[in-house]
Amino acid sequence: VSHLTAEPPQAVVDLLGLLAYAELLAFDRMATDATLAPDLARRAVLSEMAGAEIAHYQRLAARIAELGADPEQAVAPFRAALDDFHDQTQPNDWLEALTKAYVGDSIADDFVREVAQSASDARLEPADRALVLDVLHDSRYADYAAAEIQQALAAEPEAGNRLSMWARRLVGEALSQAQRVAAERPSLVELLTSGADADVPALFHRLTAAHTARMSAVGLNN
Amino acid sequence: VSHLTAEPPQAVVDLLGLLAYAELLAFDRMATDATLAPDLARRAVLSEMAGAEIAHYQRLAARIAELGADPEQAVAPFRAALDDFHDQTQPNDWLEALTKAYVGDSIADDFVREVAQSASDARLEPADRALVLDVLHDSRYADYAAAEIQQALAAEPEAGNRLSMWARRLVGEALSQAQRVAAERPSLVELLTSGADADVPALFHRLTAAHTARMSAVGLNN
Repeated sequence: VSHLTAEPPQAVVDLLGLLAYAELLAFDRMATDATLAPDLARRAVLSEMAGAEIAHYQRLAARIAELGADPEQAVAPFRAALDDFHDQTQPNDWLEALTKAYVGDSIADDFVREVAQSASDARLEPADRALVLDVLHDSRYADYAAAEIQQALAAEPEAGNRLSMWARRLVGEALSQAQRVAAERPSLVELLTSGADADVPALFHRLTAAHTARMSAVGLNN
Repeated sequence: VSHLTAEPPQAVVDLLGLLAYAELLAFDRMATDATLAPDLARRAVLSEMAGAEIAHYQRLAARIAELGADPEQAVAPFRAALDDFHDQTQPNDWLEALTKAYVGDSIADDFVREVAQSASDARLEPADRALVLDVLHDSRYADYAAAEIQQALAAEPEAGNRLSMWARRLVGEALSQAQRVAAERPSLVELLTSGADADVPALFHRLTAAHTARMSAVGLNN
């Protein structure tokens, strides 16, 4: 079904707009965070992670335009929440930057994956579902960040408390901004709950369990 | 001939190191400059330009390591000059950012192309020559920047003087830092003059002529 002549489906445009701005902003913030790296090899890895976001942004923006919507307008409702998230979570050093990439990107990816998988076909057509799943972060970046954090904590165990607190702050801030987005864009909530077996409490349980497992995996406390 | 067991060839390591740091820093600065864009589509293009630099950095660093040198040490002699160039030429707005990308990247590319083409095979083996030519900027970015500058000047002709002055400052600052590098790394000068038909005055004439043509093409005065 082509949407070219019909009204663009608001929930899908919202979802793609949210992801598009998240990618563009992640590029910008990770590019800045990369300068916190202790050496050029590490700086290049975070810069490369940042660069990957841009290709994703371009694909999302192209699809938004294809659906007959304006990318600039599609991202507008999400700018304040995402800007605020990043303003409230500016890393002070390399380990905080890595932890932000590891914890933040992973939980965001989990959430997006759940939305894409639980939305009904009527609300999210297969091509858009595939696009959304395709712009998730490459897992090798999370693996890299996890290995770096583990290694740093092995060398400096006393950093564990500080990073655990930092991770909790990241999650708290993300949840706070997610609630704001949900309140402002009920279409996104409808998308999430449109599937036959939508179970929001179970979803949050899965997200939390996966987050806790990731924290433990690198030696951080939830 | 493999360099793996021999002493790494200093001039080649210098050239690759210079280019590597230039790419890493260009990523960082263009990523920052992208936030000056008046809209997200333009911001994404400059971010994409920035992202392209990182893949180039990774290739150069990999080759430096393959030659038996340490990428971190290889870039060290060039950091101050390149940092200073960017510190002295921070764009104040979107048009200055575009002009910097257009004028600066093009003249740097011309210079690198001349070095790669004029160095003798004995000094720069074909694989390294090919790598150096391959990490030049994609010409579609210069085309994009040129079209944007032309369009902006058509809408706002009075910006021409300011941008012309800005371009002259960019070139002057680049030349000043290039002289500093040449004085500190004679190996690079030797590389440039190692070819059978090395003619440095003719080289500078070609670089200047190409720069002047680029300026005229977008309506700027040299």
